[in-house]
Amino acid sequence: MRYELYYWPGIQGRGEFVRLALEEAGANYVDVARRSERSGMGMAAMMRLMESPELARLPFAPPFLKAGRQVIGQTANILLFLGPRLELVPKGEAARLWVHQLQLTIADLVTEAHDSHHPIGNGLYYEEQKPEARRRAEDFTQARIPKFLDYFETLLQRNPDGDAWLVGDTLSYVDLSMFQVIAGLRYAFPKTMKRLEPDYPLLVALHDRVVARPRIKAYLKSKRRIPFNNEGIFRAYKELDR
Amino acid sequence: MRYELYYWPGIQGRGEFVRLALEEAGANYVDVARRSERSGMGMAAMMRLMESPELARLPFAPPFLKAGRQVIGQTANILLFLGPRLELVPKGEAARLWVHQLQLTIADLVTEAHDSHHPIGNGLYYEEQKPEARRRAEDFTQARIPKFLDYFETLLQRNPDGDAWLVGDTLSYVDLSMFQVIAGLRYAFPKTMKRLEPDYPLLVALHDRVVARPRIKAYLKSKRRIPFNNEGIFRAYKELDR
Repeated sequence: MRYELYYWPGIQGRGEFVRLALEEAGANYVDVARRSERSGMGMAAMMRLMESPELARLPFAPPFLKAGRQVIGQTANILLFLGPRLELVPKGEAARLWVHQLQLTIADLVTEAHDSHHPIGNGLYYEEQKPEARRRAEDFTQARIPKFLDYFETLLQRNPDGDAWLVGDTLSYVDLSMFQVIAGLRYAFPKTMKRLEPDYPLLVALHDRVVARPRIKAYLKSKRRIPFNNEGIFRAYKELDR
Repeated sequence: MRYELYYWPGIQGRGEFVRLALEEAGANYVDVARRSERSGMGMAAMMRLMESPELARLPFAPPFLKAGRQVIGQTANILLFLGPRLELVPKGEAARLWVHQLQLTIADLVTEAHDSHHPIGNGLYYEEQKPEARRRAEDFTQARIPKFLDYFETLLQRNPDGDAWLVGDTLSYVDLSMFQVIAGLRYAFPKTMKRLEPDYPLLVALHDRVVARPRIKAYLKSKRRIPFNNEGIFRAYKELDR
């Protein structure tokens, strides 16, 4: 199966959580909107699909994944679909629901990270909501980041199969997402993270363990990994990191 | 199976999406935090579970559902678990992922509805973020509500099995959630909804179809249905509805 991933070409964004799973598994996939329009792909192909009047199972927004004739939207839902196929989840319904539950909690964190620079609306530029962003980012860095990191650190401490991975004794897709969150928070809030990280040794070790995976290591060095930038979810605005 | 639902006792909130599914199915369930502490339940029981140092699969926040020894968190994940058990989803993986995808899009809408009165932070009172709320609610009512309603109305139009329900030709749990969203938006933004609703006849008909279900009708009249109020997700602040 060759998977087709559709996502905005210039940012890591929510698409990155799917990319990391596909890369770790060595899956056969194409990042459609980043390919050339001459090849029939690119943004034009993505817009064509989103605007197709025949598509009954229309996604609300990118990312979405095409797998054969199936079109699947919502990041956590895509990972729910891919998990068993890429062997990135344990067996059994209860464990899979648990991995998915953590992915949804990460999705909440990601939305809050986005809203730290866009608290008023996505249709406005950051420059149009700077004072509000300053207040929201203060709450995010002071209250919310520690609350989320406390939670995930506690889960690692309590994992009955050891503290290397969030679920069981093997990497699952949620560990890749956790790595991405830590990398993103470091990019957006370096001072905050420098202050907080000593309290989260297991999460930092998890981050490093993911970076050391051979396929992830190769991916992070490749051109397929778009660098963090200030168009994405995690943005480095100094005035929001105090 | 007797399900135990754990959620804040004074509001509909996110717990309501689970309650509606349990009620429509006539399931055997107990709304733990709303029961008396004398009976061993109430808020004390909820806090006991959330603070239990032995619980490895700890939920981040209510609602969560106890089903035997399994504790399941994240609203959409609870519905993913309950759907097949309550016969509130079609058969087949692809259809179930599609229902779940829509539920996750509703979850995004619900977060935005919440943030329309709490754009800065959950730890602050509404009164501490009124100017920001006014700006965010303007964006929500002018841009975001129409965008979400356009999307769901289009899905009803395109459903190959007819426009009565969002997926297939039978009610699924996401229809119950769609009803709840429309009811909530009407409570919070009556002027906005009065203006918008003529453009969404299929969604309004879906809302009415859910209200007419015998078990939902009985539930909505019962004391089990907590009235909308200004502690919940959907809040009626006149200054935010213009």
